[in-house]
Amino acid sequence: MGKEITSRATDYSQWYIDLVKKADLAENSDVRGCMVIKPYGYSIWEKMQQALDKMFKDTGHVNAYFPLFVPKSMFEAEEKNAEGFAKECAIVTHYRLKNDPNRPGKLMVDPDAKLEEELVVRPTSEAIIWSTYKKWIQSYRDLPLLINQWANVIRWEMRTRLFLRTAEFLWQEGHTAHATSAEAIAETKQMLDVYAEFAETFMAMPVIKGVKSEGERFPGAIDTYCIEAMMQDGKALQAGTSHFLGQNFANAFDVQFTNKEGKLEKVWGTSWGVSTRLIGALIMAHSDDDGLVLPPKLAPIHVVIVPIFKNEEELAKISTKAEGIAKELRKQGLSVKFDNRENLKPGFKFAEYELKGVPVRIAIGPRDLENGTVEVARRDTKEKKVVSLDSVVSEIQGLLDNIQQNIYDRALKFREEKVTKADSYADFKKILDEKGGFVLAHWDGTAETEGLIKDETKATIRCIPLDAKEESGACIYSGKPSNKRVLFARAY
Amino acid sequence: MGKEITSRATDYSQWYIDLVKKADLAENSDVRGCMVIKPYGYSIWEKMQQALDKMFKDTGHVNAYFPLFVPKSMFEAEEKNAEGFAKECAIVTHYRLKNDPNRPGKLMVDPDAKLEEELVVRPTSEAIIWSTYKKWIQSYRDLPLLINQWANVIRWEMRTRLFLRTAEFLWQEGHTAHATSAEAIAETKQMLDVYAEFAETFMAMPVIKGVKSEGERFPGAIDTYCIEAMMQDGKALQAGTSHFLGQNFANAFDVQFTNKEGKLEKVWGTSWGVSTRLIGALIMAHSDDDGLVLPPKLAPIHVVIVPIFKNEEELAKISTKAEGIAKELRKQGLSVKFDNRENLKPGFKFAEYELKGVPVRIAIGPRDLENGTVEVARRDTKEKKVVSLDSVVSEIQGLLDNIQQNIYDRALKFREEKVTKADSYADFKKILDEKGGFVLAHWDGTAETEGLIKDETKATIRCIPLDAKEESGACIYSGKPSNKRVLFARAY
Repeated sequence: MGKEITSRATDYSQWYIDLVKKADLAENSDVRGCMVIKPYGYSIWEKMQQALDKMFKDTGHVNAYFPLFVPKSMFEAEEKNAEGFAKECAIVTHYRLKNDPNRPGKLMVDPDAKLEEELVVRPTSEAIIWSTYKKWIQSYRDLPLLINQWANVIRWEMRTRLFLRTAEFLWQEGHTAHATSAEAIAETKQMLDVYAEFAETFMAMPVIKGVKSEGERFPGAIDTYCIEAMMQDGKALQAGTSHFLGQNFANAFDVQFTNKEGKLEKVWGTSWGVSTRLIGALIMAHSDDDGLVLPPKLAPIHVVIVPIFKNEEELAKISTKAEGIAKELRKQGLSVKFDNRENLKPGFKFAEYELKGVPVRIAIGPRDLENGTVEVARRDTKEKKVVSLDSVVSEIQGLLDNIQQNIYDRALKFREEKVTKADSYADFKKILDEKGGFVLAHWDGTAETEGLIKDETKATIRCIPLDAKEESGACIYSGKPSNKRVLFARAY
Repeated sequence: MGKEITSRATDYSQWYIDLVKKADLAENSDVRGCMVIKPYGYSIWEKMQQALDKMFKDTGHVNAYFPLFVPKSMFEAEEKNAEGFAKECAIVTHYRLKNDPNRPGKLMVDPDAKLEEELVVRPTSEAIIWSTYKKWIQSYRDLPLLINQWANVIRWEMRTRLFLRTAEFLWQEGHTAHATSAEAIAETKQMLDVYAEFAETFMAMPVIKGVKSEGERFPGAIDTYCIEAMMQDGKALQAGTSHFLGQNFANAFDVQFTNKEGKLEKVWGTSWGVSTRLIGALIMAHSDDDGLVLPPKLAPIHVVIVPIFKNEEELAKISTKAEGIAKELRKQGLSVKFDNRENLKPGFKFAEYELKGVPVRIAIGPRDLENGTVEVARRDTKEKKVVSLDSVVSEIQGLLDNIQQNIYDRALKFREEKVTKADSYADFKKILDEKGGFVLAHWDGTAETEGLIKDETKATIRCIPLDAKEESGACIYSGKPSNKRVLFARAY
C-alpha cells in the first residue's frame, strides 16, 4: 500500500497529492477548484475546531453567524479590502432557474430573475460584519465585541491544490471591535499567540511569529501578524494571520461609539483566521513516505489494535483481550479501533494504519496470549516493543505524550537547521537554491526591493520576526542600511 | 424590560419577532432574506449541534464536507429534485469584479469573467453528493455509506421570518447509501427516531411521527417521514424530515455496485435534515410573555447568580459565597453566570435573565448571608423558594431535571388538548377556526382533495401518523372511503 505513494525525494508535490488521496483525506470535486473533504480528513478538522474553539472561548470570545452573501455596494465600501479580493469573487446575479424551452427536462437561468444588486459570495466577512456592528455599537459599554464565526468562504483561485489553495475552504474568522487602539493591538497579538500555541501544542508544528511587510499585508489592515511554519521540502507555509484593522472598517461603515466622556469616537478593529489549509500544513510538516504521521492530540484514532490469528478460535481469544484493552483505554478518553476484519491480512492492516497516521498500533497474536504480552508499535519512529498485557493500558498515554513531543522536537530541529543567515545577495540565492528553508537577511524596507527579490528568486518576505534583534546591516539587494533581519523563504 | 415584548394574546407573530430580537437571538441583515444569528442565538444552535452530532455518531455516521456550488448540469440531473428547487436558487454566473470606469473606487461585475456553466448555490446537496458517491461506490463492501454534513444552504424565499424561513440557513444533512431497499428504509426510520428523541429529550417538545402525503414529499424522494410539533398558537411546525430516496439519485447519477453475487445493482439512498428552524420551534413551543423559556438541556446558561447589595462591602461578602456556589456547580458540568455588574439593579437583571430564559436564578442578599440561605427561582413556573446555603449546590441538578420534565409535560398536555377528531367538513373548519391545533380526519387519499382543502382552509396534511389506527371512515371532503385518519393543521 505504501508503495503507491510517490516518495518525497522523487517528487514532493506528487507525494503530497498521493498522500491526501490515498489516506482518504480529500479529493477534487467536479466543481472547479472546490474540494470534497472526506470523512477521515474532516475528522482531523473537527479535532482542530474543538481545540481552537475552546481556546477562543477561554479568551472571552463567542460564536455567531453572518450571511454568506455581501451586496456589492457593501463589499466595496472599504476600498482596499474590496480591491484586494475583487479579482477572485464569485458573484450571484440571479435567484431563479426555469425550464429551458429548447431542452425538455432541463433548466436555464431565468433572465426575469436578475438581481437589482449583485451579491458577492464572501471571500472574508469584514464588510458584512462591520455593517452589522454599526447597529450593535453605540456606547463604550457595547465594547469590546469579541466574536468568532466558523464558516465557508470562496476565493476564486486559478491554480488550486487540495487543502492548501482551494476556491472554497472552511475557516474561522474572528472579528473584534474595541474602544482603543491599544486594546485592539493587544487583541491582535493575543490571537497570534493563541494560533502559535495551537500550532505548537496541538499540531506539534513550531512556528515563527512575525509581522508582514506592507506588500504582504491583508487588504484593509494596518498590520498583519502571522505565524510561519517550515515544511519538509524547505518551503514556508503561512499558518495563521491576525490583523490589526485600525479604524479602517469603522471609517468605511461609520461605526462610532460614545466614550466615557460622552464624545463620539471611531471603533478600532481586528480580524484573525485559520483555515482547512492547516490540514495541508500538518501533513507536510510531519508525514513520511509510508503515509501520515499525526500528532496524537489531533489524531482521529489514537490506538489501533490488530489481532493476528489463523482461525476463529484464535480470533475469539484475542478479541476478549483486545476488547478489554480497548475498553480501558477508552475510559482514559482515547479513541481506539479494534480491527477484527477477517478478510484482510495483518500486514495489509499495518500498512493501512501507517498510511492513516494512527500514532500507536497494538498487535496481539496467539503467542502473545501465551506469554501475556502484546506488541506495541509507534508510528513516528516505527519502533516496536513487547509490553506485558498487565501494563499496556497504563503505558499508552505516556507513549502518546512522548510521540507528541517527539514529533514536535523533530520538526523543531528540522526547522532550526533550515534557518540560515545570508549577508550577500549571492549567498541568499545560493541558500535558497541549495538548502532552501528560511533565510534571515537585511532588507531596506522598500516595496521595490521586496518586489525585485521576489521576481528574481521567488522568495518572499514571510515576516519581520517579533523577536528580531536590532542589528545594523546593509540590505542584501540595495546595500542600503537596515536595522534588523527579516525572514525570507519560498512559500506555499 | 418584559413590557417591551408584545403579549402572545395581543399578536402572536409580533410576540415571536419581539422575543427573537429582544433576547438577542437573531436579526435581519442588510442582505435580502438572510439573518444574522447573534451570539446568544448561536450558542443555542451549538448546544443543538453537540447533542445531534453525538446522536449521529452513536448511530455510526461520520461527518464530511461537500462543495457549496453545484454546476447546473449536475443540479438538473435528478429532474424532480431540480424542478422542486429551481424557483428558489441563487445562481453564480461570474467569478470576478473589476473597477467600474464610471464610478471611481467602485466595482462592477467583469463581463469577461462569465462562467461557461452557471453554478447553483446548494439548496440541498443530494446532487453534488451522489455525483461524488458514484466515485466512491463500486462494491457491496463500500456500502453502507453513512455521511452527515453540517453546512449552510440557500433557498430564495420571498417571505421570510427569523429562524423559521430565511434565504440562508444552517443545517445538517445526512446522505446515506445502501445495498438494499430494506436497509435504506430502516435508516430513514432510524433517523426519524433520532430526530424525535432529540426533539422530546433535549427540546422538551413532543412530536408526532408520520409520513408525508405525496404532495408534501421532498422532491426526488419516494417517501418523506417527518416529525410535527404544535406551537402555542395552535399552528403546526415541521421540525425534521427523513427521506427514503429509493434509487432515484442512483439512477440520475448512475451509481451502481457489484453485489455479493457479482451482479451490478443500483444503490439505495436516504437523506435527512434539521436546521436552525428548530430554534424558532423551541421559542414558540415554550416561551411566555416575559421571554424565553429554555429547556435546561439546551440552555447556554443554566444558572445565574444575582447579588443584592447596597455597597461594596456587601457585594464583597456575597461574592465570596456566590463564587463558591458557582465553582461547585461548574464542577457538575453546569454553565453558571455570576452577574456582579454594579450599575444595574437586581430587578433589571431578573427581567433580563427571564427574557433570556435562564432556567434557574439564585439571588443572594445580606439577609441571606445572615440566615445562611439563598433564594432560588425557576424560570418555567416563576416559583421561588428559600434554600439553605448548605444544600443549594446539591439541589440544583435535580431542579434542572425537574424543569426539563415540567416543560415537556406542559407542552405535551397542551399538544394533547390540541388534537381533535373531525368527522365532517363543517366540524373540521370550525375546529380550525375556533380551536386550532391538529385535526385528525379521514381523507380519500387524492392530491385533488388535499389541494381543495388547503385552498379553502389553509390547512395542510402534516402527516399520516405512523401510529394511525386502521379505521374505516369517509373522507370529510369527498365522502369517499378512507381507512385511516390523517393529521391536518395550519402550519408554519
